[in-house]
Amino acid sequence: MDEKKQRRITIAVDMDGVLADTETHFIKYYEEESGEKVNRNSLLGVPENIAFPDKTAVRRYVHTAGFFRTLPLIRGSVSAIKKLMEEFDVFIVSAAMEFPLSLFEKKQWLEEHFPFISWKNIVFCGDKSIIKADYLIDDHIKNLDNFSGTALLFSASHNVHVNHHKRLNNWEEMLEYFEALKQNK
Amino acid sequence: MDEKKQRRITIAVDMDGVLADTETHFIKYYEEESGEKVNRNSLLGVPENIAFPDKTAVRRYVHTAGFFRTLPLIRGSVSAIKKLMEEFDVFIVSAAMEFPLSLFEKKQWLEEHFPFISWKNIVFCGDKSIIKADYLIDDHIKNLDNFSGTALLFSASHNVHVNHHKRLNNWEEMLEYFEALKQNK
Repeated sequence: MDEKKQRRITIAVDMDGVLADTETHFIKYYEEESGEKVNRNSLLGVPENIAFPDKTAVRRYVHTAGFFRTLPLIRGSVSAIKKLMEEFDVFIVSAAMEFPLSLFEKKQWLEEHFPFISWKNIVFCGDKSIIKADYLIDDHIKNLDNFSGTALLFSASHNVHVNHHKRLNNWEEMLEYFEALKQNK
Repeated sequence: MDEKKQRRITIAVDMDGVLADTETHFIKYYEEESGEKVNRNSLLGVPENIAFPDKTAVRRYVHTAGFFRTLPLIRGSVSAIKKLMEEFDVFIVSAAMEFPLSLFEKKQWLEEHFPFISWKNIVFCGDKSIIKADYLIDDHIKNLDNFSGTALLFSASHNVHVNHHKRLNNWEEMLEYFEALKQNK
C-alpha cells in the first residue's frame, strides 16, 4: 500500500445482482432442473429465495458447488468497474459468509472476470454494517438501509418496488451518476 | 438482524496472532520440515515472513493446504471473546484474501473453535481500512495504523518494538481493558 491515496472517495460494490447476474443463473438452473422456463416478469417485486414455483430451488442452488463459479456477468460491469477505478477506490464487498463453499469460488470468479482488482480490495462479509465507504452499490435494501455512506440501489427484479434509495438501472446510469459527481466537485 | 442493537460498541478482532497462534504453528511446521527447533527469542522484533533461518519457509507454509485449518488457539481467546460478546458487538476480521485457499479453512476453524459467532459477524478482507468499528484488536501495525477507531496492539514476537499503539499482552489484559472501559462509562 505504498501508493495509497488516502483522500480518494471509496465505493463499495456488491457482487451478486450487481457484478454477477444471479437472476439469469437462477432461471437457467431452474429450467435445467425442472424443464420450466420461468418468465422474468413473474420475478418482479418478489424476494429471490421464494420467486420460483419450487420455493426450495434457490436455496438449493446457492449451496450447489459451481453455482457461484459459473455466474454470468451483469452487462457492462467489467468496463464500468475499470472506469470507476480511474477516479475512485473501489472495493468489492460480498455477503459471502452465509455460503462458505462460495468463498473460494467467488474469489476465483473475480480473478477470472476482474483480474485488475487487487486482493486488498475484496471483502467477503456477513452483515455489511461493518463496512466504511463513501458509497455502497447494492441490490438489497437490507445492506443499503444500515449503510453509513451514500446508498445506491442497483435495479434487480426483486427490488422494483423499493423507492427509498437512489436507484440506478444499469451500469451506464451508474457511470453517468459518478461522472456528474466528478463534474460537480 | 431483527434484534440488532444499533448502539452497541463494536470490536473488530483479528484472527492470526490474536485468536490463532500462528507463531507456535510456524515453529512446529519448521521443526517438522527441517528438524530445527527455532527458539522463540530469535523471533523477537523480526517480521514473521523472514524470522526463520530459511526465509522461504513461512511463505510456503501459509500456502500449504491445512495450515490455517489446524492452527492452535491463542491462550484464553475463546473465553475472552465469549465474555466480550456479552457487552459488545464482536466482529472477526481477517486479512484472509491474500491466501484464497485459507478462506474456507478459516471459516471451518472458526466454526470449530468459535461456533457461537454468527456468520454475520465474520469478515475476510484485504486492506482493513474499509472496516468501520469502534475498536480493532490486531498484532500488525499495518492494520492498526490506518484504522479510524481505537487501535489495540495484541502482543506478538514480531511487534515487540512497536510503541505507538496501546499494547495489551494477552487476553487477560484485554478483558481488564474493556472491563475498565465499562466501569468508566
